[in-house]
Amino acid sequence: MTSAHSASAYEELRALFTRLARFDHLSAIAGWDMQTMMPPGGSQARSAALAELSVLKHQILTAPQTATLLDRAQQESLGDIDRANLLEMRRQYDNAVLVPTSLVEAKSLAGARCEHAWRTQRPANDWDGFSKNLREVVKLTREEAQIRAQAAGVSRYDALLNLYEPGMCSRELDRIFGDLKTWLPDLLQKVVSKQAKEPCQLPHGPFDLEKQRQLGLSVMKLLGFNFEAGRVDVSVHPFCGGVPEDVRITTRYNENEFLTALLGIVHETGHARYEQNLPREWLGQPVALARSTAIHESQSLLFEMQLARGSDFLKILRPLVTAQFGEQAALEESNFIRLNQRVKPGFIRVDADEVSYPAHVMLRYEIEQALVEGEIEVDDIPVLWNEKMHRYLGLDTVGNYRNGCMQDIHWTDGAFGYFPTYTLGAMYAAQLFQHVRNALPNLSADIAKGDLSALFHWLQHNIWQHGSRYPTETLITCATGEALNPRYFRQHLKNRYL
Amino acid sequence: MTSAHSASAYEELRALFTRLARFDHLSAIAGWDMQTMMPPGGSQARSAALAELSVLKHQILTAPQTATLLDRAQQESLGDIDRANLLEMRRQYDNAVLVPTSLVEAKSLAGARCEHAWRTQRPANDWDGFSKNLREVVKLTREEAQIRAQAAGVSRYDALLNLYEPGMCSRELDRIFGDLKTWLPDLLQKVVSKQAKEPCQLPHGPFDLEKQRQLGLSVMKLLGFNFEAGRVDVSVHPFCGGVPEDVRITTRYNENEFLTALLGIVHETGHARYEQNLPREWLGQPVALARSTAIHESQSLLFEMQLARGSDFLKILRPLVTAQFGEQAALEESNFIRLNQRVKPGFIRVDADEVSYPAHVMLRYEIEQALVEGEIEVDDIPVLWNEKMHRYLGLDTVGNYRNGCMQDIHWTDGAFGYFPTYTLGAMYAAQLFQHVRNALPNLSADIAKGDLSALFHWLQHNIWQHGSRYPTETLITCATGEALNPRYFRQHLKNRYL
Repeated sequence: MTSAHSASAYEELRALFTRLARFDHLSAIAGWDMQTMMPPGGSQARSAALAELSVLKHQILTAPQTATLLDRAQQESLGDIDRANLLEMRRQYDNAVLVPTSLVEAKSLAGARCEHAWRTQRPANDWDGFSKNLREVVKLTREEAQIRAQAAGVSRYDALLNLYEPGMCSRELDRIFGDLKTWLPDLLQKVVSKQAKEPCQLPHGPFDLEKQRQLGLSVMKLLGFNFEAGRVDVSVHPFCGGVPEDVRITTRYNENEFLTALLGIVHETGHARYEQNLPREWLGQPVALARSTAIHESQSLLFEMQLARGSDFLKILRPLVTAQFGEQAALEESNFIRLNQRVKPGFIRVDADEVSYPAHVMLRYEIEQALVEGEIEVDDIPVLWNEKMHRYLGLDTVGNYRNGCMQDIHWTDGAFGYFPTYTLGAMYAAQLFQHVRNALPNLSADIAKGDLSALFHWLQHNIWQHGSRYPTETLITCATGEALNPRYFRQHLKNRYL
Repeated sequence: MTSAHSASAYEELRALFTRLARFDHLSAIAGWDMQTMMPPGGSQARSAALAELSVLKHQILTAPQTATLLDRAQQESLGDIDRANLLEMRRQYDNAVLVPTSLVEAKSLAGARCEHAWRTQRPANDWDGFSKNLREVVKLTREEAQIRAQAAGVSRYDALLNLYEPGMCSRELDRIFGDLKTWLPDLLQKVVSKQAKEPCQLPHGPFDLEKQRQLGLSVMKLLGFNFEAGRVDVSVHPFCGGVPEDVRITTRYNENEFLTALLGIVHETGHARYEQNLPREWLGQPVALARSTAIHESQSLLFEMQLARGSDFLKILRPLVTAQFGEQAALEESNFIRLNQRVKPGFIRVDADEVSYPAHVMLRYEIEQALVEGEIEVDDIPVLWNEKMHRYLGLDTVGNYRNGCMQDIHWTDGAFGYFPTYTLGAMYAAQLFQHVRNALPNLSADIAKGDLSALFHWLQHNIWQHGSRYPTETLITCATGEALNPRYFRQHLKNRYL
């Protein structure tokens, strides 16, 4: 596990990052276990073990020797992919070395404490208790943001945003969300009025959990999930975790309603297929990682929103559903399609339809940006939240912290700068899918036949196999002929819902 | 995660071993996942990740600074438990520092290769393929044994035995097994003839797997397993893993027969309760670890053989069984007891009854001792195996490698010196249980009422809470008034089976 003396600096870096990837593997599996399998009594010991490994990884990555190796490797003659790999190594190093281990640790512990307490504070609607912990998370986040901003010569918020979405900035986000604000509330209202005239029946349960699980497995199979290298389980908050060689997705079942779990599985399978198809010969190296959180989300939303909630796919999904639960009026084709395309503004982001979803994201973006930049304080959140929920979704959240500003886990964990990637992902998904439609004229007919091979081949060829080889803009431009263009998203919503 | 400068050497060591325990936690969970949850495609990446962590732990433990700290701490004023903790730290260090990391790694990789190939070689009865890998494992094991033997001034085999059973030596084992050989084959024959006159009906299946699982859970509950700090799952080879805060036991279900899985759960629950009741205020320190593999096995066998296969317990187990599967002739009380006390020599150790089990262990002990000491070679194993199976159990294994010398995983993994601890465990269990009977005159009546609290209290007080505070001999002498005495085991077998 040590490198030979004659190795080039780049070869030594490869060995170093392979070692880090092995530790990442253990973090990923122990983290997955924590959410899916671990009994509550294991929580404290597990948190301590994971924090210890995080500190170790940070120390290995930021050792003085790494900087020397990066500088030396820069001078070496490298192929294109190695050059891209070196760039990603540098990016990881630069991001890590700025922040002292003590701050990494303090932030991780404050986040864990805040998230742990949130589990009981949220059901108790206890904003006072929660905000106390959150203030500490915000304080440490601002410290980190300040250090990063200074080094990068950007704003504090942009410095954090770049950890999730390299190359993105709030100027661009302001432009995108500024545009959204001009048409989305109006579109939403129109869709809601239109759908009010199209009555939609809800399926009658109960829906046996084992049958729901079997249904999920059959859909994963249809979507090409590789069960030799992954599995699906249950967790409170659905996610896609694990490692490319062993991808772990989760969902949560409810006996009264099966579509949330099912479409959740479709969503996570989108993430999973990206992971499972990252370039295998480079696995363990930074260049083999997914490009960014927005690109990752573009794959899950392409599967869930573009593909699976489209009428073509819903027609082949329907028989899989009735095979498990039998026929009933609500599962007849036209109603089944309406069910999956229903738009209904609500309090909870993760349950939102794709039309109201961006409003949830805008709201959080505006608040978290002001919070990180120091323009507002934690105590200002509830009032702002209520104002924006009124403006964007017409909902009142006064006193309803539980289904308002305490509904999410992102701020709790200190992940400021993450939220915008959901809507960027939705936009990339719309742009990619429109381009696939253009590139594959038979797509609609193929989907109706249950043949998704051409679609997957296209994604594999244009997105998955590239890992982090290209910057996001290059990746998207090569795939679709242009950089991010939000008009595809608007067009998609109009086509589907108006 | 770094110690203050003013800390004593002992405090620094405590911090060091806490750190190692956190890494052990991650190894334990990732190892558990590998046996229970992991899809096959994750195997290679998981092995690499676990090996990387093993190397790291070995490096941390054997760093030159550790030796200095151990020497300095020796001079510090310490309480009794701290002194015992320091002794265990020293033992771990001494065991680790002797062997170069390269040999640790080579042995781990050779073991993983041998075990991996064994999975297909065993069903194929492929001794030639298997023995090739095993020779490499034996070669590296001899290297390790030679280094350890030289440092400790003991034989090669004793040096390995001491890794599992500190304080035990082959002279003592020769005495114990020498005695066993004088009476066990005769006892076995008598029991078999006696039982031939007592016909025993087998239960008719199938036995629904979910009902078997529920039955297992109800028995674990009866046995005091803490579900807040552990769980039960399925694996090919049942085991008890995880960490004291989160104990993971496994079993394997067979639709045609439920007793193997059920008594397997009882066995692993014995291990689990020991782990779950190790001294919590010392968790993460070496003194809080289980005393030895034989003491660990004494707890599982006390649960499985002494308690659960005794008539008192079987009478309260029976209604739990019929609650799941209904009544049938084979489940009537007298037949149910006979079923669980049946003695039948067979090829497979893990399926053996408690009378023939020691014969399996003797056979392996004699062969592995000669192998490690260099008196025989891998190619000599099959002939010796057959000779000893004839002598001890009256069975022929010529050409039957699959159910002969290829049935186990211990040698495959290089765990030479482990086998004897099974029979030592059976003897400790018999001695402990006889002493509990003497100490608790109402035990039999309590068990018949399903009240096991006094038994568990006794074990908690005399064994579990002590962790590694005392050497094995002290632990057993304090608990039972004398050191290991095999006569209790003989007496137990005679009482139960003749």
